Amino acid sequence: MSETNRRIVLAKRPSGLVDDETVRLESEPAPQPADGEALVKVRYLSIDPTIRTWMDDVPSYLPPIQIGEVIRSGGVGEVVESRTDAYQPGQLLFGMTGWQDYVIADAGERAMTVLPEGVPPGVAIGILGVTGMTAYFGITDVGQVKEGDVVVISGAAGATGSAAGQIAKIKGAKKVVGIAGGAQKCAHIVDELGFDEAIDYKNEDVAARLREACPDGIDLYFDNVGGSILNDCLANLAQRGRVVLCGAISTYNDDGPPVGPSNYLTLLVRRGRMEGFIILDYLDRFPAAQMEMAGWIAEGKIKSTEHIVEGLEKAPDALNLLFSGGNTGKVIVAL
Amino acid sequence: MSETNRRIVLAKRPSGLVDDETVRLESEPAPQPADGEALVKVRYLSIDPTIRTWMDDVPSYLPPIQIGEVIRSGGVGEVVESRTDAYQPGQLLFGMTGWQDYVIADAGERAMTVLPEGVPPGVAIGILGVTGMTAYFGITDVGQVKEGDVVVISGAAGATGSAAGQIAKIKGAKKVVGIAGGAQKCAHIVDELGFDEAIDYKNEDVAARLREACPDGIDLYFDNVGGSILNDCLANLAQRGRVVLCGAISTYNDDGPPVGPSNYLTLLVRRGRMEGFIILDYLDRFPAAQMEMAGWIAEGKIKSTEHIVEGLEKAPDALNLLFSGGNTGKVIVAL
Repeated sequence: MSETNRRIVLAKRPSGLVDDETVRLESEPAPQPADGEALVKVRYLSIDPTIRTWMDDVPSYLPPIQIGEVIRSGGVGEVVESRTDAYQPGQLLFGMTGWQDYVIADAGERAMTVLPEGVPPGVAIGILGVTGMTAYFGITDVGQVKEGDVVVISGAAGATGSAAGQIAKIKGAKKVVGIAGGAQKCAHIVDELGFDEAIDYKNEDVAARLREACPDGIDLYFDNVGGSILNDCLANLAQRGRVVLCGAISTYNDDGPPVGPSNYLTLLVRRGRMEGFIILDYLDRFPAAQMEMAGWIAEGKIKSTEHIVEGLEKAPDALNLLFSGGNTGKVIVAL
Repeated sequence: MSETNRRIVLAKRPSGLVDDETVRLESEPAPQPADGEALVKVRYLSIDPTIRTWMDDVPSYLPPIQIGEVIRSGGVGEVVESRTDAYQPGQLLFGMTGWQDYVIADAGERAMTVLPEGVPPGVAIGILGVTGMTAYFGITDVGQVKEGDVVVISGAAGATGSAAGQIAKIKGAKKVVGIAGGAQKCAHIVDELGFDEAIDYKNEDVAARLREACPDGIDLYFDNVGGSILNDCLANLAQRGRVVLCGAISTYNDDGPPVGPSNYLTLLVRRGRMEGFIILDYLDRFPAAQMEMAGWIAEGKIKSTEHIVEGLEKAPDALNLLFSGGNTGKVIVAL
């Protein structure tokens, strides 16, 4: 094998957004699969906010990426050579590929999942992947959505938020309000995705608009952003309201701890609950959820949008898009 | 009836601690019981931190006390005249008495509870009253304490905190750590109440001591104080750790919203939960819990301490004691 593996490694821990000093593009010969292994050519990378958190030297649900290591990332690749019965050449696999051209898959710790016939790669790493599963379990299991709920979603035009809002609606929420940045995204989530209302946090007073849109309070708030929007939602929580902590994208590029939500005592006076979750805990329940989601996709009940960026070398820019709000829907890098 | 009813009313909303301008002592003729009513002479007042929150013009789980209204408070009184079969002269009743000498009880909205034979008034408004019930349901129901848990209690020498720690221990916690102010209180909770360890927040580095005392993290944190101690406990939360929001005594005298807990994202990465509750929601479960608690008192498994202040006119000072940390155990005003 004389192919070259380009790989993007962590050069220096970022302060704020990823920049030219944060990562380094290296080239090396593509790895050779040993017995029991397959060589996979990476086709698509799943660009998720959590990647930014792994670049910090902070204990989290996965260890930090070490300096010199390839950037950890989900993705889809094609088997180009196989020395295991687990994978056949030509098959598409999804799993943890990293930001690189080639990855080794085996049947053990580096196992990947064969993409079922007919499932587009973007769907596999998007709405049926970790992104969609995060929305699904966050809304149903952690958030305990129920008939008649008033639900608010931040980051609502993003991959997880847009799925979360649609799932809440399918599960019987009375009203789903999305918070997004800019008129175009707000129109998108209402007109294309069926949200009942949108709040444009870049041009509107979020606290005032929340009181207007949810006069009886928020039963379930799905938080992708943290910061002032979390605080505004806490202030407007209904009795026994639930806050699902999915992410805090507004804070990931800050140095030091974020500003805490000063309105947290509404949890006390309104008997509320704020709860975090890690989607890796739900892996054994993915198949059933994926089947339910696949059914909704087939019925046209849930839609996903992809934002494709071309070229491995553009992966850092693609990641930064999530923080500038430059994307609508799932950000994918096509190699 | 020619008796005088002294009553302490809200004169001006406080900024910070209650002072001479906050309340006013008024005198009026004692009320006359109508048909179906009884006249109750107040003997003891239950002094609780929540009274301070009712003085602010802020929506909470009960409406704010209005200017000119008597200060809302639990208490115990003796029936001195009865025009209802519900209460007999000489009986001790407990319920909402307010800061005054006399109160009217009826069988409807102003109903009070007859104190069972042999239960001292201090126990009725303390460990078997709202104080003890708050500790009981906070630890068992909201906090879901379980065998082997590492439990941390703030305000541990206070009425609720000291009960909460003892209940956690009875329910099988592996280790109960109390946070209190000063060497004397710390010695009290360990030597008298059976806490495993104490942290003196006035003289020790709470974050460092928590790491030492709970090297595997905190499974259940019962928060009476808010502020930096809440934040330190969040930082040291174990996987699936629970934070029970019972109060935020460190913040009640601040103007404006408290500083939010900047470490709230540990709830996300450690799959944690922070939940508030209001003890009034548990009223229908009081009898069973009171019976269980009474059993523990009889067996000597749970102890309560009372801090008695003499004289109705001293009620505002008694309330301030809670915030200066001048009390150990339940603060009661004896009239």
